[in-house]
Amino acid sequence: MSIHYPSGQGPHLHRTKLVNHLPAPRQSSYSKRGMSLEKEINESNQYYRATHQAVIHKKPTPIQLVKVDYPKRSAAVIKEAYFRRPSTTDYNGVYKGYYIDFDAKETRNKRSFPLKNFHQHQIDHLMACVKQGGICFAFIKFTTLDLLYLLPATKLFAYWQDQQNGGKSSITLTTIKKDGIPVKYGLNPRLQYLPAVDRLIAIYKKGEKNE
Amino acid sequence: MSIHYPSGQGPHLHRTKLVNHLPAPRQSSYSKRGMSLEKEINESNQYYRATHQAVIHKKPTPIQLVKVDYPKRSAAVIKEAYFRRPSTTDYNGVYKGYYIDFDAKETRNKRSFPLKNFHQHQIDHLMACVKQGGICFAFIKFTTLDLLYLLPATKLFAYWQDQQNGGKSSITLTTIKKDGIPVKYGLNPRLQYLPAVDRLIAIYKKGEKNE
Repeated sequence: MSIHYPSGQGPHLHRTKLVNHLPAPRQSSYSKRGMSLEKEINESNQYYRATHQAVIHKKPTPIQLVKVDYPKRSAAVIKEAYFRRPSTTDYNGVYKGYYIDFDAKETRNKRSFPLKNFHQHQIDHLMACVKQGGICFAFIKFTTLDLLYLLPATKLFAYWQDQQNGGKSSITLTTIKKDGIPVKYGLNPRLQYLPAVDRLIAIYKKGEKNE
Repeated sequence: MSIHYPSGQGPHLHRTKLVNHLPAPRQSSYSKRGMSLEKEINESNQYYRATHQAVIHKKPTPIQLVKVDYPKRSAAVIKEAYFRRPSTTDYNGVYKGYYIDFDAKETRNKRSFPLKNFHQHQIDHLMACVKQGGICFAFIKFTTLDLLYLLPATKLFAYWQDQQNGGKSSITLTTIKKDGIPVKYGLNPRLQYLPAVDRLIAIYKKGEKNE
């Protein structure tokens, strides 16, 4: 994960920020519903865990510790540390016996999704997980259109490979509509993504039979 | 995870520690081989990933950020943060299509393993993962004996339940030898734990057939 600066604040402005919530501060693209995709997914995961449907967690952001203080009679205080780039995607867990692994990306674009939102280490990690038989994908949200898709990792690999070979640097919404599985919003949880995962599992099982 | 203090330093001594490595400082119980179980597992995971045998990672320690500084032209600096208790175990990943989840514990005892090394949230998480069909276990190492066992989560649940009902607060080495699967040391990786996982998967598949 690259470190984003709060919107309107470039890296050249010196400032200290008080953070009241996890995770690391990042550029927020809010949808019309006023909630970031990350928060929506975290809420869904909480709901799915509480109702024993799936056990999926967001991984903590890795930190490089430099200085830790141990005050009298109280908890250790981290006094100097830096954000590190994770070597995996943000989410993983287990559902119906399947290993689930994914990342979530948002764009404010209306016609296409820029591939620069992904990083090589995320693609490498997803490829390694697919090889081990994991159910891997990316959530791609067009925030201004309020459209969310589950894009199978294998499709993502094809676009990525194409880009490496000098092809398109973004995926059109039309392609995502064709290759992705739409994710529906509801009441509880708001983001109901397990039905889309079920469809991906069905595709995966069909592929296994044909091998 | 509870925060441990460096050995010989109780919580009543005020000190500042410079940390040159991840993860959070913790009490280290070194085996005769001079390497902590955590480091051994991390090395094995790295080897298994590099040789495309399994994709298993240690989760980062979750941090509660309080103050983050954004200096001119350089990376964000965390100036105040605290360690948080994780809601899962430390390790998970995918192997041969199976979701793998485990924690690793060490004891310097020679005859039994104290159950207080586990926390309720770890047991709850392992139970939830077992329900979803995950392959779940704990590594238990007797450091002074240099003995390492893979203990299936279902066995651990039984001891834990027994303890809750006023039973024994530790598991004898004899019981662990009976219920666990021995893990062998070798050359590359030093800790060769996938063969033990294979045995656990075989037990799991047999159980599925009998249902």
